[in-house]
Amino acid sequence: MQATCAAIDWGTTRFRIWTLDRRGAVVAERQSDRGMSTLKPADYEAVLENVMSEIGAAADLPAIICGMAGSAQGWKEAPYADLPALPGTIAGAAVRVPSDSRDIRILPGLAQRDPSCPDVMRGEETLILGVTLSGMNQGTICLPGTHSKWVRIVQGAVTEFHTTMTGELYALLSRQSTLSHMIKDADAVDCEHPCFIEGVRQAVARPHSVASALFSARAAPLLHLATGEDMAARLSGLLIGLELAGMLPQLNDKKTDEITLVSQGPLARLYDRALGLAGMNVRTLDSDDMVRAGLFSAAKTLWPL
Amino acid sequence: MQATCAAIDWGTTRFRIWTLDRRGAVVAERQSDRGMSTLKPADYEAVLENVMSEIGAAADLPAIICGMAGSAQGWKEAPYADLPALPGTIAGAAVRVPSDSRDIRILPGLAQRDPSCPDVMRGEETLILGVTLSGMNQGTICLPGTHSKWVRIVQGAVTEFHTTMTGELYALLSRQSTLSHMIKDADAVDCEHPCFIEGVRQAVARPHSVASALFSARAAPLLHLATGEDMAARLSGLLIGLELAGMLPQLNDKKTDEITLVSQGPLARLYDRALGLAGMNVRTLDSDDMVRAGLFSAAKTLWPL
Repeated sequence: MQATCAAIDWGTTRFRIWTLDRRGAVVAERQSDRGMSTLKPADYEAVLENVMSEIGAAADLPAIICGMAGSAQGWKEAPYADLPALPGTIAGAAVRVPSDSRDIRILPGLAQRDPSCPDVMRGEETLILGVTLSGMNQGTICLPGTHSKWVRIVQGAVTEFHTTMTGELYALLSRQSTLSHMIKDADAVDCEHPCFIEGVRQAVARPHSVASALFSARAAPLLHLATGEDMAARLSGLLIGLELAGMLPQLNDKKTDEITLVSQGPLARLYDRALGLAGMNVRTLDSDDMVRAGLFSAAKTLWPL
Repeated sequence: MQATCAAIDWGTTRFRIWTLDRRGAVVAERQSDRGMSTLKPADYEAVLENVMSEIGAAADLPAIICGMAGSAQGWKEAPYADLPALPGTIAGAAVRVPSDSRDIRILPGLAQRDPSCPDVMRGEETLILGVTLSGMNQGTICLPGTHSKWVRIVQGAVTEFHTTMTGELYALLSRQSTLSHMIKDADAVDCEHPCFIEGVRQAVARPHSVASALFSARAAPLLHLATGEDMAARLSGLLIGLELAGMLPQLNDKKTDEITLVSQGPLARLYDRALGLAGMNVRTLDSDDMVRAGLFSAAKTLWPL
């Protein structure tokens, strides 16, 4: 197999690269922690060229990039594209990075400029492109994470999206707040833990109760009424449940009750379980497969064979 | 005026002392940042004796203390007293600190051991004692802060209370999250700022929408739709509104629609405005006056003249 392009997901904390053949199959891949937060603008080219030579990529292999590398603090800014965003919108707004060797393009993020719910994404638009190309023409996508994105697709276009800071809130509360002394194994919550399930149910049914429920994660272990592992599960359930309570009424397509969950590993299991508890039917797609499909599609648009 | 006791509020970050005459009037006062978080158990006595000599207190003046100095990580643990807590409960559960010179007592916190809503307080119980002694026999008290406390009083006793982490969430989000780069003047929010008012109204009416509304504090300035000062006001309004949405249905005495707000300064103004927007009548008491009254009352119980 011969590589026809390099596809790169360059986020805040993580760098991933795949070289792809003419049908989009993986020729070689690497990942590292050389994300935007560790780099200055002048560092990007060397990081890319080093890994290219490591995986034996040709010196003129074109490279397509999505993610924070295209932010104002990244390698080169790729300004946000506006809604509604059709599949062609994203590749069409790619910017070219000056380089003596290869053709390097960075895909834009998306901006929702509605003053009543302004929002932005960068990186997820490429993954969503992969989802729509997989055949999804209509419905709601949930991309859980540090900043979860909920996306409405109408006739193959992104028409609306909303970010919730669930992953970041969980990290702040479990590691940097007064709760942190009590919480144990915050990264190992089991989706079948009764405290996770109870937390999701409470937050979905009574979202207004979450603000006062959080502190029980400190009080209950202090009074020997629960363990730190219990409280990690409860906190995770409350925050994911609050996300669902906010997003499902806003974005759920009542006709199908189906959510397309795009995720991986333990996080995918937590959201799958929580969405089921909220009465939804869940279809899960692998997030790596989707971002690679989106990058490959943009590459084919930019560099027709 | 001659001092009959020293009254001390010894919290996590702040130390305050008043010497009081036989009627509870202030003879001398001091405050410093020598809170629990800066001290080891062996440090407390020297800190207290230094300030006692600074303000010319007699070597045998008794001292009554409330707050985190009585926690397991403080000077000497004063175990939590249980609910319902009558005014006599708190003084009755004071612990004595061994000292060669003066009589030093630390007041206990309160624990709510209900497994469905476990909660604890330490320091606020003394302030609440001051409020009930001021004549409040029935109703709801709101003590805003890092960890806001909402307290139900029935026949002069604390029967129920709930903590919300509003102040800590605001500090984490405005200073340590991805929102922090966008937010300006987080400590100077004006209670008449339209974004504060709109945030309170949104959260009270639609608490489930808060999780996704938080991220607009990043997206709106990024898209030049709002300023960092606007977003500080909005974030403050959303979080205080979420606190009210959770607490008012749970604790509000429908017969009066009155909340006793115990606070001071800018925070008192924000909560007074927010409670008014939520349709409540607010009576405000000064938190320093109340904690001093509670300490003096406990002193009179322990050391009858």
